[in-house]
Amino acid sequence: MLTTLQVKSSQRSEMIDVTGQVQTVVSKSGIKDGICYLYVPHTTGAITINEGADPNVVVDILTTLDRLIPWRNNYRHMEGNAAAHIKTSLMGSSERIFIDNGKLVLGTWQRIFFCEFDGPRTRKLHVKVASL
Amino acid sequence: MLTTLQVKSSQRSEMIDVTGQVQTVVSKSGIKDGICYLYVPHTTGAITINEGADPNVVVDILTTLDRLIPWRNNYRHMEGNAAAHIKTSLMGSSERIFIDNGKLVLGTWQRIFFCEFDGPRTRKLHVKVASL
Amino acid sequence: MLTTLQVKSSQRSEMIDVTGQVQTVVSKSGIKDGICYLYVPHTTGAITINEGADPNVVVDILTTLDRLIPWRNNYRHMEGNAAAHIKTSLMGSSERIFIDNGKLVLGTWQRIFFCEFDGPRTRKLHVKVASL
Repeated sequence: MLTTLQVKSSQRSEMIDVTGQVQTVVSKSGIKDGICYLYVPHTTGAITINEGADPNVVVDILTTLDRLIPWRNNYRHMEGNAAAHIKTSLMGSSERIFIDNGKLVLGTWQRIFFCEFDGPRTRKLHVKVASL
Repeated sequence: MLTTLQVKSSQRSEMIDVTGQVQTVVSKSGIKDGICYLYVPHTTGAITINEGADPNVVVDILTTLDRLIPWRNNYRHMEGNAAAHIKTSLMGSSERIFIDNGKLVLGTWQRIFFCEFDGPRTRKLHVKVASL
Repeated sequence: MLTTLQVKSSQRSEMIDVTGQVQTVVSKSGIKDGICYLYVPHTTGAITINEGADPNVVVDILTTLDRLIPWRNNYRHMEGNAAAHIKTSLMGSSERIFIDNGKLVLGTWQRIFFCEFDGPRTRKLHVKVASL
């Protein structure tokens, strides 16, 4: 069963904590022991796992990506969002997290972030939960 | 069942669209609902998902990787392809895509690319299709 | 079944070959044909697959990451390890490797590395083996 979540961004570059939404899908599935697969069906948005306790970690990640891959840099892609495509491939389109006793097995500081690199937009995040 | 595709590159750095080849493996498997796992068994080649409509997106990705990780940069690895190894770890060796009704669940603009970072060569891409 | 390995680092930045430890988990599981899932439950440590034959490849990867993402760079995160968080998202928190006839299906030069970016520490690496 494939569930598609909606994620709304409000800035060009943003990391949005979707842990709660994903846990809800896992809980509703009734699966106690397995894997939760996440997939971003966009080419200018990605998924990553990182610290959520201090919001400055996200700021540092986005700022560093902007420094390494500036928005304007004589790209060939005419739509103007080449940087967003490049960041997407570096961060990755998919993640998977173990499920134990119905809960996502995340480390103490880990949260799941949808990475918006060409917002603001409304995005999709596919979630599949499987017992394994 | 593990299927191994052959991917032929013609340049040192290249992103080769393998979506059609992968979909063929999925179709032949007969699996309607599941996951397609992709794995690159090389240390100077990777896999990523990005836009295929405008070929300049791929050019921008490869050019930016070359700018950040130049081919020559006083690396210690004596084979001369250290940059290719570094790019491989940044882009990643594996991907997985959901299968729905026998089709890869890709976003409108998404294509699957084999990333060659030390070509030209003939490469392997392992594909595994599982119902889930 | 989830197995948690311990990985001990001795430097701030280090890539530790865990292939042997992971293969042991696979062998003990008795599973002959499937997938081995690896997951790092930390936000300043990651997992990657790369060449293990020449230890200089690892040196080049770590040196390049340090050049692109310096330890000090006016980050906002006050703990002082923002660079480690950023590297973690670039390298990724999870990997999966096919299992064939009870063995990890790795390429000739591939080894599995735990990436320590804020050591020295004792880290966890979750391993799940599933027949598929």
